Amino acid sequence: MIGGRATRSLFERKATCRAGSNIAFIKYWGGAEVATVQAGDQPPVRGEGLNIPLNNSISMTLADAHTTTTVAWEDSANLPEDTVAIDGVQLKGSAAERVVAHLDRLRALAGVSDKARVVSRNNFPMASGIASSASGFAALTVAGAAALGLRLDATRLSAVARRGSGSASRSLFGGVVEWERGWGRGESEGGSGGAPFLRLDSALLDSRSVAHQMYDERHWALRDVIAIVSAGAKRVSSSSGHRLAATSPLNAARTACVGAWLETVRRAIAERDISLLGPVLEADALAMHGVMMTSEPSLLYWQPGTLEVLHAARAWREEEGVPVYFTIDAGPNVHLICEADAAAEVERRVSALPAVRRVLTSGPGAGPELLDGHLF
Amino acid sequence: MIGGRATRSLFERKATCRAGSNIAFIKYWGGAEVATVQAGDQPPVRGEGLNIPLNNSISMTLADAHTTTTVAWEDSANLPEDTVAIDGVQLKGSAAERVVAHLDRLRALAGVSDKARVVSRNNFPMASGIASSASGFAALTVAGAAALGLRLDATRLSAVARRGSGSASRSLFGGVVEWERGWGRGESEGGSGGAPFLRLDSALLDSRSVAHQMYDERHWALRDVIAIVSAGAKRVSSSSGHRLAATSPLNAARTACVGAWLETVRRAIAERDISLLGPVLEADALAMHGVMMTSEPSLLYWQPGTLEVLHAARAWREEEGVPVYFTIDAGPNVHLICEADAAAEVERRVSALPAVRRVLTSGPGAGPELLDGHLF
Repeated sequence: MIGGRATRSLFERKATCRAGSNIAFIKYWGGAEVATVQAGDQPPVRGEGLNIPLNNSISMTLADAHTTTTVAWEDSANLPEDTVAIDGVQLKGSAAERVVAHLDRLRALAGVSDKARVVSRNNFPMASGIASSASGFAALTVAGAAALGLRLDATRLSAVARRGSGSASRSLFGGVVEWERGWGRGESEGGSGGAPFLRLDSALLDSRSVAHQMYDERHWALRDVIAIVSAGAKRVSSSSGHRLAATSPLNAARTACVGAWLETVRRAIAERDISLLGPVLEADALAMHGVMMTSEPSLLYWQPGTLEVLHAARAWREEEGVPVYFTIDAGPNVHLICEADAAAEVERRVSALPAVRRVLTSGPGAGPELLDGHLF
Repeated sequence: MIGGRATRSLFERKATCRAGSNIAFIKYWGGAEVATVQAGDQPPVRGEGLNIPLNNSISMTLADAHTTTTVAWEDSANLPEDTVAIDGVQLKGSAAERVVAHLDRLRALAGVSDKARVVSRNNFPMASGIASSASGFAALTVAGAAALGLRLDATRLSAVARRGSGSASRSLFGGVVEWERGWGRGESEGGSGGAPFLRLDSALLDSRSVAHQMYDERHWALRDVIAIVSAGAKRVSSSSGHRLAATSPLNAARTACVGAWLETVRRAIAERDISLLGPVLEADALAMHGVMMTSEPSLLYWQPGTLEVLHAARAWREEEGVPVYFTIDAGPNVHLICEADAAAEVERRVSALPAVRRVLTSGPGAGPELLDGHLF
């Protein structure tokens, strides 16, 4: 069960959750949408919309980049439609539909037809390379389920959150987290060619493609120094981008590498070895952006400031010995990963770069927490 | 034979050649250095240093980005060492050695031990994504061979120039040029897996991995509007970078795509169809940079200004219908490819971008030309 400081009546029907975003060391990019998903003897279904990843991914949950979400369920006689506000703005169109589809999943689990009022706040800019959908769908899942009185463990909640946003499955846990793709010929990582045999079904609580905690937040004092170079919204959302991965001629080559990279990252984290972790971070991020750039249509998430930070970080490391490495999500901002004792120096340097508008630093955080107060 | 306006005495021993750079539509990146090169029944030799490419490439020779080189041979009693000046600077170290190694090839062909004075001038910044080595080694080869009285056709000169710099093989011809990799199981392009059987030997004049002209410079009035965003020299030269291609996990995936891309480019050029050519240009350039970024060490040739131009060009095309497409060589500058009637508009727009320091526009040019005058 998700931790919370208050006991809650089943009849309150309102709950608030704060969940941390996460930064992936090995990325999730591209799902098994076009493959067939089959569970045991049941008829196969298409993987589309299930957010089943092509490869396992590993992330660190962030303490200081989080989303706080209140969900209040009301009888549809009183509230005819779901309403969703994020950072003070009422969602409309496809963004609203994505949240409503997730509320539908919670309604289906609870067997209710109530509507929800959802109010959500991020403490960082949305849609710019910090995974707001990860923390957002994790918080929505936990708050929504709690307010409905659903008694689900974090693993089951991870499976539900995954349906809203793949990377949200990882934000159900604190510390260092691995999300198992949950399908394939028994391997636990990327594996190589051949038609995938997906062992997963489409049930909401299927616990195969879910995340688990590798180490809690005290294992390794890493820091993510996030250089925000542009707060503008992305032209292509991550969820659309995932569907394009398969159109890149480089995609299969990247996923074929991921198995070895996962092994290295697991070992680097076990041994708390930044010089082992760092080069793999950079390689996987660059490979993912290589896939993005060569998909059809081509996704070019980087901005001029992105490259300014990349070149600076490499120069600091190679010419001055600062132990810092970069990774980049589906956006222009650069995540500079270092150990705690280097963070102040990295922050100082990155803040001085002309293209950097804001710097946000986070260490590893705990899993989602239910809060006493509500956002309305 | 290479065109020239003057007849030249075999005894003059001095010649000047102007050769155009070229912009590749399908790139040369990565050579068959580690493969074994075998010709007929002769013992196999290593491909290293032969500049035998992994894939065919296609380029347009540029009229207005060129190198002019004078080579004067003198008895080694008078001139004990080769001397090489480029843009007024005497070359030293590895840069000088690379030119001397090429002079050695010309000496071997002529059976002489004379030394050379080489003076060369580019009309564009060196080592910044305009192929100065292409025009430079083409001009050096033609001038050096002419001054030695070697009577070689352009195909043989292409094979010699290739040894100095792979892309120089293409600058031996005007218009649109294809460089055949010249090895493999009979295919004329990239092909797929399997151990390559190289049909090429290491002879200087071997005419298998050489370029040929597809169309002369009057076939299609394309323009290369070159946005120079940084005139700084590269930290890693292309010739070093080629050796790193094989270390990228994405390299094989790119070369596997090139066969189809070559077909499309050949058709687009035959039909003078910019909307067919453009997307392939961009895809191959981005795939090549994906390979570069993920090699070990990682090569990040782009600068902030590079991305400013890429985003601008896409916005002009997608939002305003300007028919312009980009490609990028091993450097930060962006080559905007369009038809002649769009060039003024593209020039105007690109000149207004803050990151662009200089704009150089070129149409298709003729092959190398021997000139009457000399640079000293």
